[in-house]
Amino acid sequence: MNKSNILSVSAIEELIFKSFIAVKNYAPLVHCLTNTVVQEITANTLLAAGAAPAMVPDKQEAPIFAQIATGLLVNVGTYSSPHPEAIMAAVKAAQMGGTPWVLDPVAVGGLEPRTSYTRSLLEYQPTAIRGNASEIIGLVGAGDGGRGVDSADEVDNALMAAWELVDKYDTVVAISGPVDAVVSKAGITRVQAGHQVMTKVVGTGCALGALVAAYVGAVKIEEADPRLLHAAVVAAHAHSGVAGSIAAEQTTLPGSFKVAWLDGLAALTAKKLVNTVVLTHQNHRE
Amino acid sequence: MNKSNILSVSAIEELIFKSFIAVKNYAPLVHCLTNTVVQEITANTLLAAGAAPAMVPDKQEAPIFAQIATGLLVNVGTYSSPHPEAIMAAVKAAQMGGTPWVLDPVAVGGLEPRTSYTRSLLEYQPTAIRGNASEIIGLVGAGDGGRGVDSADEVDNALMAAWELVDKYDTVVAISGPVDAVVSKAGITRVQAGHQVMTKVVGTGCALGALVAAYVGAVKIEEADPRLLHAAVVAAHAHSGVAGSIAAEQTTLPGSFKVAWLDGLAALTAKKLVNTVVLTHQNHRE
Amino acid sequence: MNKSNILSVSAIEELIFKSFIAVKNYAPLVHCLTNTVVQEITANTLLAAGAAPAMVPDKQEAPIFAQIATGLLVNVGTYSSPHPEAIMAAVKAAQMGGTPWVLDPVAVGGLEPRTSYTRSLLEYQPTAIRGNASEIIGLVGAGDGGRGVDSADEVDNALMAAWELVDKYDTVVAISGPVDAVVSKAGITRVQAGHQVMTKVVGTGCALGALVAAYVGAVKIEEADPRLLHAAVVAAHAHSGVAGSIAAEQTTLPGSFKVAWLDGLAALTAKKLVNTVVLTHQNHRE
Repeated sequence: MNKSNILSVSAIEELIFKSFIAVKNYAPLVHCLTNTVVQEITANTLLAAGAAPAMVPDKQEAPIFAQIATGLLVNVGTYSSPHPEAIMAAVKAAQMGGTPWVLDPVAVGGLEPRTSYTRSLLEYQPTAIRGNASEIIGLVGAGDGGRGVDSADEVDNALMAAWELVDKYDTVVAISGPVDAVVSKAGITRVQAGHQVMTKVVGTGCALGALVAAYVGAVKIEEADPRLLHAAVVAAHAHSGVAGSIAAEQTTLPGSFKVAWLDGLAALTAKKLVNTVVLTHQNHRE
Repeated sequence: MNKSNILSVSAIEELIFKSFIAVKNYAPLVHCLTNTVVQEITANTLLAAGAAPAMVPDKQEAPIFAQIATGLLVNVGTYSSPHPEAIMAAVKAAQMGGTPWVLDPVAVGGLEPRTSYTRSLLEYQPTAIRGNASEIIGLVGAGDGGRGVDSADEVDNALMAAWELVDKYDTVVAISGPVDAVVSKAGITRVQAGHQVMTKVVGTGCALGALVAAYVGAVKIEEADPRLLHAAVVAAHAHSGVAGSIAAEQTTLPGSFKVAWLDGLAALTAKKLVNTVVLTHQNHRE
Repeated sequence: MNKSNILSVSAIEELIFKSFIAVKNYAPLVHCLTNTVVQEITANTLLAAGAAPAMVPDKQEAPIFAQIATGLLVNVGTYSSPHPEAIMAAVKAAQMGGTPWVLDPVAVGGLEPRTSYTRSLLEYQPTAIRGNASEIIGLVGAGDGGRGVDSADEVDNALMAAWELVDKYDTVVAISGPVDAVVSKAGITRVQAGHQVMTKVVGTGCALGALVAAYVGAVKIEEADPRLLHAAVVAAHAHSGVAGSIAAEQTTLPGSFKVAWLDGLAALTAKKLVNTVVLTHQNHRE
């Protein structure tokens, strides 16, 4: 593997390969504090990809479990009492215990009190943040947050907000869109995979947040290299997206697509993954 | 379109066509305050039909979002604290803001405190009410409410209760059964479509409630004609039912039926819908 | 049927047949106080098997409904306020009203406060307990409870704990594993059916807990014979497992397997069930 600080597409592909194998080897246990709509597909996505899900929402148990788990996902989609208290406790425990955690700021920027609440989680330094353009913009305090979970903004419009989050919290920011952008101190990687029908199956995006937690958790077991973390986030997006591309070759109707996508997540090999995903990378911001 | 006050089957078919196109054009954003069992299938049903789902259960956010959304669904299936408070706030906001809202009175008549709570929502004038015969009867205070979510009563036994709700709250009442009845000041329409296996897939009925909210929301964007509202409720039932009829031609086993039904919801065209559904209509009560 | 106290494999097979028919005849109404991740698959499993699901989580409604229902399932997977209070009320009401109830002690032994809470439910004498080896061990106060919902222990390691529960609470204990063990005063029955891919679909185990509640509820309508109760628990495991074996002949990818399993649950006949499941039985403990 390329040991310099400079990432290239081929270096990223090597690290994707490594991340994929790490998930399969370690079967990362992902603690999901997620919205109540997508819990089942989130769990099934993790299982299909080789990880293990657990949802432990109690405010006393959640922080304990956040230190046992390999990774933690926080998704504020159905923000409501008493979850915010449990999430806050878990996030603090994750930071303290060194558990990588991922923030999915659903509808942030568009609704209060979730917006100020979610911003207050940032000081516990999420390992990665995954959202659509409106949410990433909303997280730093600009824009109008889209319409529910849809994004009213283009991926590129969120790049400035992403850089701000990277600089302030030393995190990896993934902006989901037709072509995803993964942004960190290691540069910007564009990930092209997936199919439009994925937006017609609830939870494919939220489950991707959990997959990011599985990937960053698994690679952190091996080493805490920022380039590897960056590539692990890319790998999670590639895994979900390529499974979607393959499924969409069979069907683009949403009921059967969901089934085919879960099958694809499980059937995918590291080689097929790397050969199918289309990546571009730039090391610098301009 | 027939501009008189009298509806006929062919006039309803024309309005179904118009409603279907309105859903596809406007992609109505449906705020679902629904039971926790069926959230995923509810969201997927809306997405398949061309609408957009969002679940915002927090008591501060719910009323704000009820005014942003195109339509609101309230389903009391898993009635329990703190949801009733958020639902009440959302319903008040919907009425005040002119957002059409749909009430699904699950197990009302059979359990307290949900029965008195749900009756107290009526004063905020639901645009439509969808339930089985026992629930519609239970809502006006007669009957024993069935056994859980099953209906112990026949559709026709609930007609008097439906008329009472129509007269008191100027709403459209849909009574679900082997043949559904849609009742409003515009008359009674019977909708024949669907298959018995739909009762073996949890959430097909609850998701229909959300689809009604999508349809009444979408047509209200265009105009607030009571005959159009009536037809929009019929259209939602036809959309769900015809997708079920088509799916049941492929399979009547519940796992694969659910997949085929979601595919059918997405694949259906306005023409196929109108050509397949069997309607009868009477303008008067006797 | 063999009327002596001694069970043999052929006597159990006869009782499985009887239990299966009882579920089909009575369509037991199962009140599920279960974790929020698996509510949909739990409901669909019950429907596919011929039972009827209902989730009534409110602390006032839950105990009333626990006396109306044919059976009650308590699954503490997503233990968190306000559910423990409602569960406690329901369990007391079930015992008082003679409703059979089933305890699924998810992650007990591994997390507090759920472990002490769940142990405190035992005094209301569950009709049956279903869990993996770690959870059964954790329920009596030994072991470390596994890793989330995975079991760190082998089925046989939990036999001593199972006997302790049987002796203290006169219950039927089912330990899930590659070969399940059903333990009661009527002996130990080993149930061989199913496929490894079932562990890759969230909720197949939790739904089995609900199926056990359907079976013990249905047979109790007929008579309260401890051997029949034992066999009903075996029958639920056989029903789930054989549907899994049949589904796995079609596919071992998790998305399509789940669909095929639900289809298999519905398509299965009593004869096919008894002919496919592999059972061994011993009447004595050594």
